[in-house]
Amino acid sequence: MCRWLAYSGSPILLEELLYKPEHSLIDQSRHARMGVETTNGDGFGVGWYDADIDAPAVYHSIEPAWNDRNLREVASHVESPLFLAHIRASTGTAVQQTNCHPFRHENWLWVHNGLVRDFHLIKRDLALAVDESLFPYMEGSADSEMLFYLALTFGLEEDPPTAVERMVGFVEEVGHRRGTEDPIQMTLGMTDGKSIWAFRYSSERDSRSLFYSTDVRTVRKLHPERERLQEVSDESRFIVSEPLGDLTGAWNEVPESSYGVIQEGEDELRPFQPIYSGNGAQG
Amino acid sequence: MCRWLAYSGSPILLEELLYKPEHSLIDQSRHARMGVETTNGDGFGVGWYDADIDAPAVYHSIEPAWNDRNLREVASHVESPLFLAHIRASTGTAVQQTNCHPFRHENWLWVHNGLVRDFHLIKRDLALAVDESLFPYMEGSADSEMLFYLALTFGLEEDPPTAVERMVGFVEEVGHRRGTEDPIQMTLGMTDGKSIWAFRYSSERDSRSLFYSTDVRTVRKLHPERERLQEVSDESRFIVSEPLGDLTGAWNEVPESSYGVIQEGEDELRPFQPIYSGNGAQG
Amino acid sequence: MCRWLAYSGSPILLEELLYKPEHSLIDQSRHARMGVETTNGDGFGVGWYDADIDAPAVYHSIEPAWNDRNLREVASHVESPLFLAHIRASTGTAVQQTNCHPFRHENWLWVHNGLVRDFHLIKRDLALAVDESLFPYMEGSADSEMLFYLALTFGLEEDPPTAVERMVGFVEEVGHRRGTEDPIQMTLGMTDGKSIWAFRYSSERDSRSLFYSTDVRTVRKLHPERERLQEVSDESRFIVSEPLGDLTGAWNEVPESSYGVIQEGEDELRPFQPIYSGNGAQG
Amino acid sequence: MCRWLAYSGSPILLEELLYKPEHSLIDQSRHARMGVETTNGDGFGVGWYDADIDAPAVYHSIEPAWNDRNLREVASHVESPLFLAHIRASTGTAVQQTNCHPFRHENWLWVHNGLVRDFHLIKRDLALAVDESLFPYMEGSADSEMLFYLALTFGLEEDPPTAVERMVGFVEEVGHRRGTEDPIQMTLGMTDGKSIWAFRYSSERDSRSLFYSTDVRTVRKLHPERERLQEVSDESRFIVSEPLGDLTGAWNEVPESSYGVIQEGEDELRPFQPIYSGNGAQG
Repeated sequence: MCRWLAYSGSPILLEELLYKPEHSLIDQSRHARMGVETTNGDGFGVGWYDADIDAPAVYHSIEPAWNDRNLREVASHVESPLFLAHIRASTGTAVQQTNCHPFRHENWLWVHNGLVRDFHLIKRDLALAVDESLFPYMEGSADSEMLFYLALTFGLEEDPPTAVERMVGFVEEVGHRRGTEDPIQMTLGMTDGKSIWAFRYSSERDSRSLFYSTDVRTVRKLHPERERLQEVSDESRFIVSEPLGDLTGAWNEVPESSYGVIQEGEDELRPFQPIYSGNGAQG
Repeated sequence: MCRWLAYSGSPILLEELLYKPEHSLIDQSRHARMGVETTNGDGFGVGWYDADIDAPAVYHSIEPAWNDRNLREVASHVESPLFLAHIRASTGTAVQQTNCHPFRHENWLWVHNGLVRDFHLIKRDLALAVDESLFPYMEGSADSEMLFYLALTFGLEEDPPTAVERMVGFVEEVGHRRGTEDPIQMTLGMTDGKSIWAFRYSSERDSRSLFYSTDVRTVRKLHPERERLQEVSDESRFIVSEPLGDLTGAWNEVPESSYGVIQEGEDELRPFQPIYSGNGAQG
Repeated sequence: MCRWLAYSGSPILLEELLYKPEHSLIDQSRHARMGVETTNGDGFGVGWYDADIDAPAVYHSIEPAWNDRNLREVASHVESPLFLAHIRASTGTAVQQTNCHPFRHENWLWVHNGLVRDFHLIKRDLALAVDESLFPYMEGSADSEMLFYLALTFGLEEDPPTAVERMVGFVEEVGHRRGTEDPIQMTLGMTDGKSIWAFRYSSERDSRSLFYSTDVRTVRKLHPERERLQEVSDESRFIVSEPLGDLTGAWNEVPESSYGVIQEGEDELRPFQPIYSGNGAQG
Repeated sequence: MCRWLAYSGSPILLEELLYKPEHSLIDQSRHARMGVETTNGDGFGVGWYDADIDAPAVYHSIEPAWNDRNLREVASHVESPLFLAHIRASTGTAVQQTNCHPFRHENWLWVHNGLVRDFHLIKRDLALAVDESLFPYMEGSADSEMLFYLALTFGLEEDPPTAVERMVGFVEEVGHRRGTEDPIQMTLGMTDGKSIWAFRYSSERDSRSLFYSTDVRTVRKLHPERERLQEVSDESRFIVSEPLGDLTGAWNEVPESSYGVIQEGEDELRPFQPIYSGNGAQG
């Protein structure tokens, strides 16, 4: 089980969300409250966009996040208007940088909390379905990376919700054929550097927690003592696996089987429905 | 807060105590029950003696113990008649191999659970008291290593209980002079490759937990299903910060302010009393 | 470019070959003489068999070998009658434990020096040819691991030379079809815990160096000052990428396009010839 | 032996000096040309100042610099008007983050190439001379860190050249008393975030190489193809252990036993002369 967060808004130091909140993401790495596991010590990652550089940077650590001095340094000196961060509790695959989230492909970043059940049984079927041109870019062994490359194969860059619905449908088809009852459990976050999409779904309809904060103005009023919050822009948005402790009162749960989009213009929240092809695992 | 164990007896694979017991040391690294901290993810170490090589080997890891694949390999292939193992939860100093226990000096090994309070205030006073010839061998920055070198300075190799009593008395004197009420909290384990000494003491007389198992015959009867236990010799002894889960019924608490010796001949359990010199910090 | 060695004979401490020789493997990690790269600092591994435990142990390090303190400890305390060691200079894939040699599958170990050219172009074709039951065991992203699983697919456990000849033939067929002139460059070492097979081959017939030492009696006479060598059994054998410096005079080059077997009974040295199937890449 | 560089000027991405030049610092980590050792694989560090944050950030890595993916990411996204970078070849002390340069104290950064000879013999004498209030801040075991804290003790923050001259005089006095002929070998770089001081000195008057680039206008003309160089300000300055390969023609050697200051207003180059106190090691 993992934890992640996404931020979009006026540029802030990474540490404002990673370290400073009372129940910050780094704190959650040792003491998660809502998870299956209380310890998320199997790697950390953050990916961020700069104001003036197109490609996002990623920082992947295999140390427990709470011990990573470089992370603390980077987080206290790097400002970003859009970033994803992730703490990992491995469900079996190796603890190595290439298994750390966010996964990156060109200008896209991807984080996942959850798992593909019986992954070893269907790993090959899934791998064969990845587009030939994308196959060599998979570097790690995590189910989460495989989901990303499947989504890219199914058109993530053109239409993220449809691509994810097709990806999930495909994974469920393959899993069911191999005899796995509930093949997928997930919350997903992804971005192209402009919008953020967040999904909450599981085959058993009992998905990991996910929350969003729509209105910074409300949060600010609740927390007048948090200086930097007073300065972030009104459009700033947060999505988190677990509410940051000292910002309670400002969180809304993403409903079961739905997804949201944070974007220029109106944000959206919609139902999520896997798309089944009927021939997914031909590969 | 940390956790440690010591074993002496017929040679067994390290994994028999590190991994296999239900509430094993490696399991405690993620889920300690009796500690201040539930996570001991800031480094691991094991030091062992071979049947035919005099100097002990040490293996120090800065990864959380539960993720260390090399440790698992080594533990399942190395047999030893005498070893100390330790999982670390840092009280502030850096997570690096030179701060991992067991500390080694020649044929001695040393593990510590606890801390020197306000260590930064008295670190220099303590360092100056370390024997000049030993000073360059201190490689790390942990209070635990400093205690070891002070004990060596006070004659550990000749008379361990007296050396530790002098060391503790000295640390308390220095701490009190700097205004620290309860300067030291500790359980200590140490060995010269033949005997094992274990101490339980704290300035506030409220010391970390420590347990010993005196009679393997009893343990065997309680756990007939544990094959390897049936094979260990009658003289085999365990000392642990926290009972190994599936060997309950076989543990005795080391009393507050006392120490024990596991040795050829009769084992001993005696009261512990710091020795004050009255001029400790002249250095 | 990498370096490796294999040892079979009476049990010796790993350090006897890893550290003690003048131009030892660890020394080669910083100062290789015969290679394309002088530095092999991208990971290290050793796999060894014990006298009384069937499965081999592996130790994989992503630190440069010359800095790995744990390796030095393990090497000076572990004795083995049969081991493979490897220092890595990455040809592009990530430096992570799952890319470190020796690769292990059940009781087999595998090391490789060389590369699959344009690996990213044919990685998918090769992956699809791996037996379905073996596919989930591939953990890393290195070409060397893929070669191992292909060889297992082609019957390594029954007939190693034929399996390797089929594997190489397959890789060449796939590579040629993708337009790569000389798809494979390799020396390979592998063992099932009893015999050792060593191959030297490259598509361009200009293979990396490989040497073997057939007669310990000769080596002993040349180096009377090396105590431990005096004690190893007459049947002891070494295979090395690069002669260990202070054992010169005792090395024979493995001829281009050939392989050798170290086994109970007579050792063998035979020509190597890829086997082409004509339909390799159908996958 | 190590390598370092310092940059001051208009803000540039770290990668412009760490990775992009033909004989860049990262390249030197594997293939130094002018050093005693060709491999500097025992750690890396960079410390940088931001336009708008006072305290410098430091990034310390114990992986070889050429393998550090996080470093590559950070270097391609962080811009700085003033930074120091360092690649380490250990002269004996442990490879750990707390031994990586640049060392930092408040707003100061410090890098060192060279060594204190027979450091283990005089380590205690040097440590005792460190100001009591500074003592607890020393985290590592490297001679280079000790030199930094001695210089701070001798007034680095008020008058850097005098403090370094007193520090060097002191180390030579202590070393000579212990029978070491040539106690110190060094090039040093340090900064308070505004000016940079660079020293070249050794007891034997045969110091490690050090170069500076005074006139970016000249460098620009020599390298019209390097876009970013065209954009850096006229006041930009570089100091390097070894000329960056593709900027040849623009380097001046810092003379033996001298130091330079890069500062607002006129830069300076002056002779360096240790100051002897006659009672250094009383401590």
